[in-house]
Amino acid sequence: MARRNLDYIFQPKSVAIAGVSSKETSLPRAGQRYLEAVLGYGFKGKVYPLNPKGGEIKGLRIYSNIKDIPGPIDYVISCVPAHAVLQLINDCAAKGVKVVQCYTAGFSETGLEEGKQLETEICSLSHRGGIRIIGPNCLGVYCPRANFSYHDNLPKESGSTAFICQSGGNTTYSICEGGNRGIRFSKAISYGNAADIDECDLLEHLTADPDTEIILAYIEGVKDGRRFNRVLKEAAQKRPVIILKGGTSESGARAAASHTGALAGSDKVWDGLLRQAGAVRVYSFEELIDMAVTFSHSFLPRGRRVGILGISGGATVLATDDCAGAGLVIPRFPKGLRKKLGDLLESETGAILNNPVDLAATIRKLRVYDILNVLSSYEKIDLIMVHFPLGISMLSACMRSEFWDSVLEDVIRAHRKSTKPIMVVIYDLISKGDYEWMLEAQRKCYEAGIPVYHSIGNAAKALDRFLRYYEHKAREGQG
Amino acid sequence: MARRNLDYIFQPKSVAIAGVSSKETSLPRAGQRYLEAVLGYGFKGKVYPLNPKGGEIKGLRIYSNIKDIPGPIDYVISCVPAHAVLQLINDCAAKGVKVVQCYTAGFSETGLEEGKQLETEICSLSHRGGIRIIGPNCLGVYCPRANFSYHDNLPKESGSTAFICQSGGNTTYSICEGGNRGIRFSKAISYGNAADIDECDLLEHLTADPDTEIILAYIEGVKDGRRFNRVLKEAAQKRPVIILKGGTSESGARAAASHTGALAGSDKVWDGLLRQAGAVRVYSFEELIDMAVTFSHSFLPRGRRVGILGISGGATVLATDDCAGAGLVIPRFPKGLRKKLGDLLESETGAILNNPVDLAATIRKLRVYDILNVLSSYEKIDLIMVHFPLGISMLSACMRSEFWDSVLEDVIRAHRKSTKPIMVVIYDLISKGDYEWMLEAQRKCYEAGIPVYHSIGNAAKALDRFLRYYEHKAREGQG
Repeated sequence: MARRNLDYIFQPKSVAIAGVSSKETSLPRAGQRYLEAVLGYGFKGKVYPLNPKGGEIKGLRIYSNIKDIPGPIDYVISCVPAHAVLQLINDCAAKGVKVVQCYTAGFSETGLEEGKQLETEICSLSHRGGIRIIGPNCLGVYCPRANFSYHDNLPKESGSTAFICQSGGNTTYSICEGGNRGIRFSKAISYGNAADIDECDLLEHLTADPDTEIILAYIEGVKDGRRFNRVLKEAAQKRPVIILKGGTSESGARAAASHTGALAGSDKVWDGLLRQAGAVRVYSFEELIDMAVTFSHSFLPRGRRVGILGISGGATVLATDDCAGAGLVIPRFPKGLRKKLGDLLESETGAILNNPVDLAATIRKLRVYDILNVLSSYEKIDLIMVHFPLGISMLSACMRSEFWDSVLEDVIRAHRKSTKPIMVVIYDLISKGDYEWMLEAQRKCYEAGIPVYHSIGNAAKALDRFLRYYEHKAREGQG
Repeated sequence: MARRNLDYIFQPKSVAIAGVSSKETSLPRAGQRYLEAVLGYGFKGKVYPLNPKGGEIKGLRIYSNIKDIPGPIDYVISCVPAHAVLQLINDCAAKGVKVVQCYTAGFSETGLEEGKQLETEICSLSHRGGIRIIGPNCLGVYCPRANFSYHDNLPKESGSTAFICQSGGNTTYSICEGGNRGIRFSKAISYGNAADIDECDLLEHLTADPDTEIILAYIEGVKDGRRFNRVLKEAAQKRPVIILKGGTSESGARAAASHTGALAGSDKVWDGLLRQAGAVRVYSFEELIDMAVTFSHSFLPRGRRVGILGISGGATVLATDDCAGAGLVIPRFPKGLRKKLGDLLESETGAILNNPVDLAATIRKLRVYDILNVLSSYEKIDLIMVHFPLGISMLSACMRSEFWDSVLEDVIRAHRKSTKPIMVVIYDLISKGDYEWMLEAQRKCYEAGIPVYHSIGNAAKALDRFLRYYEHKAREGQG
């Protein structure tokens, strides 16, 4: 059980970075980048640059050997060339280092015998020395609670979503884009080739982690299918686990092998395994973030009956197709409710008062707040979806932003009073101003506790997966 | 044949706008908006505001009746209330008006008997008076060649893509977003309820239109299936016709009925009909624009074998899955080619040199231009896809934009020399700066003749549909 606790890899007390040159450059090499990241993000522990040549950087002495550093070192970041990693690990073992994160690439992912062998040697050497390896071929750890990050420009706030990822770039992308949409992370890790610490170790840790409520994973392959199956089941029983599997096609599997040396496995096997374990499968990073957004807004609609409210008839028609396509139900509104809505709109023509509701022609006297109140108290829908097709309006840029602002304000006010969950979809962006408006609107929404999506299809899919997850849970509970 | 020519609705010489109040307001009513649009877009013919109360606006006399206007009127925009439309049409008939575009709503789309009846009456009255009706319940015409537009803020340049659309908001959205991606229009029309001028009339016109090479359509329903079938076949034989069908689900069909009074029809019937006619079916406005982008870059790859080049291993793995999922082939590169690529990268580790090519770890010495040259001369691929996952990079905002700039410059230089088509995908945006960069990059790409997409899946789907279109053509040619 002790082995399961990997706190020491997420919350080191002291860090050394191997392969930092004393020559600072404007397009810095990896060693310098890590140093800037660790310092810039505000790490509170000791930080030591390492380079056989010695020297000084940013006022810090560069040690020529880790053994010369006074005091203990928990965590070493390796930016030395592949052929120098074995020696580094030897030195780290002598020093009593707990974990080496290998940014260094050039191992099993090369497909070459010598790369594979070097990776095996590193593993056995570190095993003998009592060291855990992250990677190789990875960016490493982001843990805001420990003020520790592989990149200084990532959000400082902690949250309850954890993310394990075999792609470095997409770790960065998901933290940033998730951040834009209100997701904060307990920890994230880019773990590359998974030569030692792998998805199973990480899932076990996160299952027991008190800081984590939702687990996201991008996995290209696993080495021990049986263990993965068991560990995933345990994890998914305890909290939502969302999995994006890379390398599902034959060519994709080849790419995965070149990327992280992963054995991708058959897509069908994966599908069955994930379904049985009760994990949620998604097919893109956007969908991965959609699910984090959905699960982190712990609202639980009682069913799939959705009331749709928007502005633009065509968008409304397609919204309905998308919701129906994802298995949601869009109940027809009874006459009494239509009349209530009609009275609010003062029977403006061009509006659609059935479900979906479209306020197209009523731009002059939108009463979104009142309309949402009426929908919220209608007992035959379970939730409300409000969509904002930004680029459809004939208004000028400034009036457009004012117009959408007032709609959004109404939605947030109505949400505060509503007994039903509200989802917001912002899409059809056509200008820089639209993108800016969206970022700001997203912030307002997540601060108010409203989840935001970027397409109606994706919002509907996320809701469907969310409901299926709880249906699965309910069946399990009965079984 | 003469009836097919609808030039007079796209290129009027004189326009009257009925329902313009002399009180200008900051959130203007429809009449004032149309006046501002027609004048602001630079219409060269005469423009007359109409209102029974008379008065003056923007230095123009407001005529109290169309019959008082000196000289002929080709085109009338109706912004009067629904109950006043019949009288307006009576007056228009007396004046010899050719076409009335009815922005006015409140007809068959209300689902009410009286609305349906009013629409029927308008049709028969205008028919007797020799007038054609656009709409009702629509925004009308955008025709840059005639300096005529329902909105003053739309692009001024003409192109060869035509667009017929039963949704007003999405006409605006598609013109703007298409514009961002290099699509210029011969004409576009929001035609609402299609009470008189319908998709068949418009398709017939566009089939014969010398200014049009590609036809896009958003259709919620057709009234005469047999005629549509024939007209669509003729159109699709002559040029690419891309169709987005709204109201494919049962609830969506109900929404379509409320939106434009359309009878949506069974989805299966539509699918068969479109396939047989050789039209290209898409499922969202983004896909509609993707197809316009693809067809307007009249490159024709000889097959489906794609070489993929990108930066970020994870993105590369998913790119490969997406391409394979859309039926593209990602051939494995032979040893000799891999060696050539490796030499260019000076055997930097972390790069993937097989197909897909991933330059992840080689950010410091990317030689995208040389790599693309090598790929371009490799005879076993038919085209090259270069993807830009903007949000994956560890670089600072400014360095990031410089970095992607240099990659893009290389792509454009290589494209000029390349004998193979190059597609660009820009995605994973996480900041305002990324959106700005994308807009600028899109402009550079379309000016250089390179099509740009916003997701690898969509690019792959577009290419697959493009190839299928020509496969269908080839089969037809043999048959």
